[in-house]
Amino acid sequence: MPTMSSGEFDIIRRYFRDRQPQPAALRVAIGDDAAVLDWPAQQQLVVTMDTLNVDVHFPRFTAAADIAWKTLAVNASDLAAMGAVPRYFTLSLCLPAIDERWLAEFSTGLFAAAETCGMTLIGGDTTRGPLSLSVCAFGALPAGRAVTRAGARAGDLIYVTGTLGDAALGLRQALGDMPQGDGGDYLLQRLQRPTARLAIGAAAADVASAMIDVSDGLAADLGHILHASDVGASVRLADLPLSAPARATLPTDELQLLALTGGDDYELCMTVPPAQAAAWEQRARAAGWPLTAIGCIEAEAGLRLRRADGSLLLLQRAGYQHFSADTAGELKS
Amino acid sequence: MPTMSSGEFDIIRRYFRDRQPQPAALRVAIGDDAAVLDWPAQQQLVVTMDTLNVDVHFPRFTAAADIAWKTLAVNASDLAAMGAVPRYFTLSLCLPAIDERWLAEFSTGLFAAAETCGMTLIGGDTTRGPLSLSVCAFGALPAGRAVTRAGARAGDLIYVTGTLGDAALGLRQALGDMPQGDGGDYLLQRLQRPTARLAIGAAAADVASAMIDVSDGLAADLGHILHASDVGASVRLADLPLSAPARATLPTDELQLLALTGGDDYELCMTVPPAQAAAWEQRARAAGWPLTAIGCIEAEAGLRLRRADGSLLLLQRAGYQHFSADTAGELKS
Repeated sequence: MPTMSSGEFDIIRRYFRDRQPQPAALRVAIGDDAAVLDWPAQQQLVVTMDTLNVDVHFPRFTAAADIAWKTLAVNASDLAAMGAVPRYFTLSLCLPAIDERWLAEFSTGLFAAAETCGMTLIGGDTTRGPLSLSVCAFGALPAGRAVTRAGARAGDLIYVTGTLGDAALGLRQALGDMPQGDGGDYLLQRLQRPTARLAIGAAAADVASAMIDVSDGLAADLGHILHASDVGASVRLADLPLSAPARATLPTDELQLLALTGGDDYELCMTVPPAQAAAWEQRARAAGWPLTAIGCIEAEAGLRLRRADGSLLLLQRAGYQHFSADTAGELKS
Repeated sequence: MPTMSSGEFDIIRRYFRDRQPQPAALRVAIGDDAAVLDWPAQQQLVVTMDTLNVDVHFPRFTAAADIAWKTLAVNASDLAAMGAVPRYFTLSLCLPAIDERWLAEFSTGLFAAAETCGMTLIGGDTTRGPLSLSVCAFGALPAGRAVTRAGARAGDLIYVTGTLGDAALGLRQALGDMPQGDGGDYLLQRLQRPTARLAIGAAAADVASAMIDVSDGLAADLGHILHASDVGASVRLADLPLSAPARATLPTDELQLLALTGGDDYELCMTVPPAQAAAWEQRARAAGWPLTAIGCIEAEAGLRLRRADGSLLLLQRAGYQHFSADTAGELKS
């Protein structure tokens, strides 16, 4: 924690410092110039950083606890996508003004997510400005076991966790762009409280040849694997996992498009060599993990989205582009 | 690096990813969900995070290269204040729009600072919003050697590096609040390109009982040591190190006030047990380090600021408070 004045420190102390157990490996905790950690030998350090800004990554009316949850979960999801186990995080919190009620709700959501993810807050700072949250997250990984985007090979099976498109539907409902159906609460929850797939990510380190988390839509994120691995893929549209509340809201073909291009699902997409596929599916079944095979890696470049009748779906746009003129201000991370 | 679209990735690649040598310990670098690092056994991991916002921590007209330099330097300074050696950092860059010229200047300043500090960029993200920079920095420290704020004991000598008050004067000049004297360039440089005292910080790990970096003014920052160590101190005002350009700008008594309450100097303040003091001063002389003894730790609580005639100076206000009504929007970190 950098130097701070008594007013700032009081905020830190009341809402953040004393809200969690302190792991033994955390030798110097919040309140000094920096945190000091023992890092286990044979464990690599995995680091990611994600920032969420008001009006860009979440609507202004989003509840403080949900903002906190999501900011931590999206970072934990990045760690899971490497096969790492989340351990620690720092938080930079930029606030327009001190609002004690907002801070109380925010910190409650933050530590609920931290407990769920097994993470400890070790530092950060508070500044004044438009609402923005920046988290840097640290995970542990047995040395040499990182699952990057670059290892997919022709013949590997492609899996995704959970269901896709729910968060994009939740956003439409939150913005009032579509009537709220029976499943509205579920869809909104998927937008505001994404589940970082920590157990599946860590287990995938044993079998996956490549992995990524689905934050910008499956087409864009699987596209990153294809590009990094220098391969292509076929995906069976009929096999895209869609939730019952989503199916109740939109026709299947529209929903498939949303699953491919909508963001914020924070599910994992991994490729698994065919020799390991049966064991991987069995492990998922035994653990009760939501895992679906959706296609396979091919040598030919490009992503082929196949309808049940064998025809190909052509996407106009794979996913969200920060800074591109047509999506300025869009509510996506 | 989290998932990003091609537009965002192009920015990352051109301005950031390919601009630096890649250390062997960095196993997965920018471009995947997260970075993967080997961390040396016997070395603790030291982590700090600092955010700088436009109009709060730097004036809007500040040059991009200076913003970048300062953001990295203030984080490196926090690591130095623990006795750690800076190694890596992540950067979250929030920009109102893509401005290629600004980005080119920014990244040039960033990597100049990174090279000076011995740091490698390992990840982060880019988002859209008001200009804001958040850095999380990682340093290495031999296990058990962290210098916290809590170790000062009565009788310890108090040292500061460099000179104090220069950055506060530089800010006044930058804002046009005072005429630019002959030393204006020097003072502005001290504001915009602070020197993280890395070598002195790492060496102080051998001798210092407590250490902090002076970011909010000596009175406030030394106050943190006194509070954490449950001691008091006397400081000799006449011994506060003041630069020649600063002396040419303000009367000594005004300058002493600025040294005590002005921020942004990023010098180190450390306490050293009397038995080690002579060797510490000799080491500083041999290395050519700017180090000044300014007082000593006392058992009685409180900070006593002594004039040459023995009278005490009473401060109205020790340092900057984020969020406090009277300093809203003030240009300080």
